[in-house]
Amino acid sequence: MASEHTAKAFDSDLQELTRLVAEMGGLVERMITESVDALIRRDVALGKRVVAADIEIDNLQRVIEERAVLTIARRQPMAIDLREIVSAMRVATDLERIGDLAKNMGKRVAALESDFQPLKLIRGLEHMTDLVLSQVKSVLDAYAAHDLPAAMNVWKGDEEVDAICTSLFRELLTYMMEDPRNISFCIHLMFCAKNIERIGDHATNIAETVFYMIEGQQITDKRPKGDMTTFATTVPGT
Amino acid sequence: MASEHTAKAFDSDLQELTRLVAEMGGLVERMITESVDALIRRDVALGKRVVAADIEIDNLQRVIEERAVLTIARRQPMAIDLREIVSAMRVATDLERIGDLAKNMGKRVAALESDFQPLKLIRGLEHMTDLVLSQVKSVLDAYAAHDLPAAMNVWKGDEEVDAICTSLFRELLTYMMEDPRNISFCIHLMFCAKNIERIGDHATNIAETVFYMIEGQQITDKRPKGDMTTFATTVPGT
Repeated sequence: MASEHTAKAFDSDLQELTRLVAEMGGLVERMITESVDALIRRDVALGKRVVAADIEIDNLQRVIEERAVLTIARRQPMAIDLREIVSAMRVATDLERIGDLAKNMGKRVAALESDFQPLKLIRGLEHMTDLVLSQVKSVLDAYAAHDLPAAMNVWKGDEEVDAICTSLFRELLTYMMEDPRNISFCIHLMFCAKNIERIGDHATNIAETVFYMIEGQQITDKRPKGDMTTFATTVPGT
Repeated sequence: MASEHTAKAFDSDLQELTRLVAEMGGLVERMITESVDALIRRDVALGKRVVAADIEIDNLQRVIEERAVLTIARRQPMAIDLREIVSAMRVATDLERIGDLAKNMGKRVAALESDFQPLKLIRGLEHMTDLVLSQVKSVLDAYAAHDLPAAMNVWKGDEEVDAICTSLFRELLTYMMEDPRNISFCIHLMFCAKNIERIGDHATNIAETVFYMIEGQQITDKRPKGDMTTFATTVPGT
């Protein structure tokens, strides 16, 4: 970037982008919490509010993309400056997908008509959500603070979520085998558990974006994977 | 863009981007076909090849993003030129997600141990895949040819896929209720049917990108939705 003026203009563009990503992150965290609350409490109205909130997330993603592109065209940033802008776009893409997954859970609330709701299942779902939510919060903090070790902690933490998901699937499968009247309800919860696990995957993506932003290259280590649900014939997850 | 030189350099950048998107599209179409073939024929080796192919898709997406960003920084395109570059990035993002969904189906092949395989179910899955695959092909052609009416045809065609998915879910649910030994197998197929439906959603996204590229604004009409699986208590799809 040639002049001091350009550098200042770039800094202000970048600040605004970072602010927008933080705003989007806050909204998405709320969508996760509220969608699972709605599921557990069978709060159809809250589920509908989560569905409605997704429009705002989609709009924010477009705004971030648009501003990022304009900043690249106007300021022609290089190296770390360019990576900062590209990273903002990437994080916004992952947040948008998380919004879609929460929206999908919000939609399912209205369909859960059964009274069947074993406490162990609810606890498992809550525990998984707490873990994933803390991953999303931590990775967004790491992104904002350029804290690579914190981002790498999130990156490594994905295994635990996958393990809980596999165990939830096993439990849901047992309930389905026991009584066909549980099937419909349990399938909804399977899709929800899968959605929460996928939200964890997006937190991992964001950790990889932080790595790229700071280190200037894509992460090459293989992502840790604790989720074996696709391979176990009795546990038909992922 | 100032000079004739810049205009030529831009055209050559754009051509290369379009070529990369077309290459990625071809690979993704093959992944869709092969993942469903692998599922239907229980071809575990083919399933594994689909899983392995996804790395190439992820790499292509990164290459397209990188080149798009460099083109924006170097050539500072405006209006339609800028939208062409942003659209290439967006289409690559949707293709990458389609690759993930096909990969997920490829992974499930190894888990389908049951011999249970009703013909009606297979036909439904094949029919749905044919429809979605033709949507993906058509929308990529529409993108390459800047053909807005063709893109809008794809955009409107999503309803039929959603309807088949809902009917497949209903059928799978019946098999699960009839015999608990079918449950695990049927859940895998439910996730696969949902994946195929989501691939259709990405074709719709690409149609919206074509609209944005040509018209210079986001599409505002509400997307047609035939999928009611989230709302029907007996059909627990999305």
